[in-house]
Amino acid sequence: MKKSTKISLSEKEMPRQWYNIQADMPNKPLPPLNPVTRQPVGPEDLAAVFPMELIKQEVSTERYIDIPDEVLDLYKTYRPSPLFRAINLEKVLGTKSKIYYKYEGGNYSGSHKANTAIAQAYFNKKEGIKRITTETGAGQWGSAMSFACQHFGLELLVFMVRVSYDQKPGRKLLMNTYGAKVIPSPSNMTAAGRKILELDPESPGSLGIAISEAMEVAVQDPYTKYSLGSVLNHVILHQTIIGQEALLQMEKTGDYPDVVIGCFGGGSNFSGIAFPFLREKLLNGKDIRLLTVEPASCPKLTKGKFMYDFGDSAGMTPLLPMYTLGHNFIPAGIHAGGLRYHGAGVLVSQLLKDGFIEAKAKMQRECFEGGVLFAKTEGILPAPESNYAIAAALDEARKADLEGVSRTILFNLSGHGHMDISAYEKYFENNLPDHELTTAEVDEAISKITF
Amino acid sequence: MKKSTKISLSEKEMPRQWYNIQADMPNKPLPPLNPVTRQPVGPEDLAAVFPMELIKQEVSTERYIDIPDEVLDLYKTYRPSPLFRAINLEKVLGTKSKIYYKYEGGNYSGSHKANTAIAQAYFNKKEGIKRITTETGAGQWGSAMSFACQHFGLELLVFMVRVSYDQKPGRKLLMNTYGAKVIPSPSNMTAAGRKILELDPESPGSLGIAISEAMEVAVQDPYTKYSLGSVLNHVILHQTIIGQEALLQMEKTGDYPDVVIGCFGGGSNFSGIAFPFLREKLLNGKDIRLLTVEPASCPKLTKGKFMYDFGDSAGMTPLLPMYTLGHNFIPAGIHAGGLRYHGAGVLVSQLLKDGFIEAKAKMQRECFEGGVLFAKTEGILPAPESNYAIAAALDEARKADLEGVSRTILFNLSGHGHMDISAYEKYFENNLPDHELTTAEVDEAISKITF
Repeated sequence: MKKSTKISLSEKEMPRQWYNIQADMPNKPLPPLNPVTRQPVGPEDLAAVFPMELIKQEVSTERYIDIPDEVLDLYKTYRPSPLFRAINLEKVLGTKSKIYYKYEGGNYSGSHKANTAIAQAYFNKKEGIKRITTETGAGQWGSAMSFACQHFGLELLVFMVRVSYDQKPGRKLLMNTYGAKVIPSPSNMTAAGRKILELDPESPGSLGIAISEAMEVAVQDPYTKYSLGSVLNHVILHQTIIGQEALLQMEKTGDYPDVVIGCFGGGSNFSGIAFPFLREKLLNGKDIRLLTVEPASCPKLTKGKFMYDFGDSAGMTPLLPMYTLGHNFIPAGIHAGGLRYHGAGVLVSQLLKDGFIEAKAKMQRECFEGGVLFAKTEGILPAPESNYAIAAALDEARKADLEGVSRTILFNLSGHGHMDISAYEKYFENNLPDHELTTAEVDEAISKITF
Repeated sequence: MKKSTKISLSEKEMPRQWYNIQADMPNKPLPPLNPVTRQPVGPEDLAAVFPMELIKQEVSTERYIDIPDEVLDLYKTYRPSPLFRAINLEKVLGTKSKIYYKYEGGNYSGSHKANTAIAQAYFNKKEGIKRITTETGAGQWGSAMSFACQHFGLELLVFMVRVSYDQKPGRKLLMNTYGAKVIPSPSNMTAAGRKILELDPESPGSLGIAISEAMEVAVQDPYTKYSLGSVLNHVILHQTIIGQEALLQMEKTGDYPDVVIGCFGGGSNFSGIAFPFLREKLLNGKDIRLLTVEPASCPKLTKGKFMYDFGDSAGMTPLLPMYTLGHNFIPAGIHAGGLRYHGAGVLVSQLLKDGFIEAKAKMQRECFEGGVLFAKTEGILPAPESNYAIAAALDEARKADLEGVSRTILFNLSGHGHMDISAYEKYFENNLPDHELTTAEVDEAISKITF
């Protein structure tokens, strides 16, 4: 019998702990600062926004954190997720390299976002919270959170970035189906939204603005908390289930990745698959590259500045030490809505600064070209965000072939694109503009940062 | 540890044979007839349309037919598919019954149609065929076949029923992404299509018309064959992998279904899950009900006539002994496009006539209501077709509760609805009309049958 292209884990083999990279970072991240006092914020400063258990996870330096049974129960409805060897893609490329991908789109939400949605809804419910507010870009996070909240009996209010709200009506309807209320952002419901609309009634919105709106609503009621789909340490912690599984699955193949790739919006997609492999590099000296891929139109990792900046547009979050394009930067309306965020999570920022990970930027059209090739060969239509990881994996394979070597490449196929098909339509119509932010434009954006 | 709600099979446990109900039917189906001579058609009559291996499967009375390795290899990229116990749905219903569902939407195509698409593309390729033509309703079959043809290096031309082409542009784009050409049907490309358009330029189309168009193109070229997504014996054979797996999974639960449910268009969805259980009834005397559910707007099983009729609108197929509304019947444009077919497959028709299976008809709105309840509780947004099975499963649970008993209910969740979200939008807008074909309307439709 031929070797299978799908590498499965049984439910018994599923990891029962999240991995916390904070335990193993050579340089710990700088603390978040209170914007007024410029002093490190303590857990109590975050208590108006997040439940205490998530705040503890945010600052924990324990290497492993147990996944509660209630969360495991829901994980087990769709996990362990499969790892595939992309045999057919390899053939068409004619590459000597081996390409593997971890597929996170097989669950109810169609993306990896379910992994943290379930955990966040659970910890909020456990502390007596009644309602959650959140932001969403393309809607993957919002739909993941909508079902998680429905499951645990929480109300959910979602501020959806306007450009995605218009591009992807299906995602809004899915959230509604799960019982969530969805508002296009910027909205008139909040002071933060009204301020943006006054300046530009046609604003396409941004994740930074939607975060401000969601936080503003949350802090007004003690039984309402705010929930974030990426960027923060506890979100990234929950996503490490991806890499923890992938490590076990790669062991079964007898191969070990030379490079692990994930696309980049706030960090949860890339970190989820990469951090457990980075642990093996840091603790066991494994020779491995961790590569993250961002849109050339929103290049905070490759062209942004490492500095303290707000996580949201209105300045409601603490100041975070991160690579940023400025909290008021509004990215071009690319179809990978989940990657339209001005800043990078604190953990990834510190690790990039310290040279433990690499970042590159790609243009939209080339990423869709890779996504279409992937769909034709491997069958799964990728989410626009995942196309960035695919395009980078193709680059790695081609580079290895030019160098005359065979490498093992692993990437995170974070979601399917069945609800993003209008973006593919634009690609086929040759109507998918490429945007590259120049260094001068980045400098100008950063010069506008005000506190 | 709590018992899991997901019942998995390992790759090793996956069945390696399809089950052929023709071996065990007490009354064998009547033969298909040549419409001119009224004599039974032989394999040679079908050779212009199908490859010989599929014709052999069509008439085989072997109980088990081996799945070729090349087909198994692709099956293993998404099979075995999971079986779930709908714990959360049961809780919300407050039912004493146990509800299980087999989920076939986790593969590249989002539905069970991949199971036969892969097999059909493989057998055509093996016999040197270069191009396939086919019809599609909602587009699940067409997208499944598009990737299968791409994988095996075959061209594909899809005639997509006009009403679905307009309702579901995403499915068309998915087929294009996989490299298939998609034409709305009725079209001007064929004599069959032109005849319909002359009578009604605004015709919404039907599966019967699309089949005529696809067959007409296929018979004109020896290297082009036609492929059907349901109805025929060999198609249903390929789908029995669903029920073969479900039997093994139900064994693991310690429960055994009292009733097995599938929705009904041409028969592949229902038969795929039900026939292996029917075998246990026929051979081992298991006390089990097999229930199929059709739209009240297209009620061939519950109101149609058992007679010889064409499988397509233009009369290109042999005459088939089946429950039918007449091959020129054009069903209302409900959103479960895959159920808009005038006739029932020969095997199901004979088994229904002989009392081994049951059929019921349901209205569209109630089915969507069931689908939304299912999404809220179990997380997966169902395909509109699958909603008919869900609604019937809810009926069974409620009936059992009224009778004060607990039953075990199993249904086929044949696909996800991420590309059918516009139908849910219409449901939420209260803009989803109910159609029920009256007995008088059925009689009128049947009276119009001409040969």
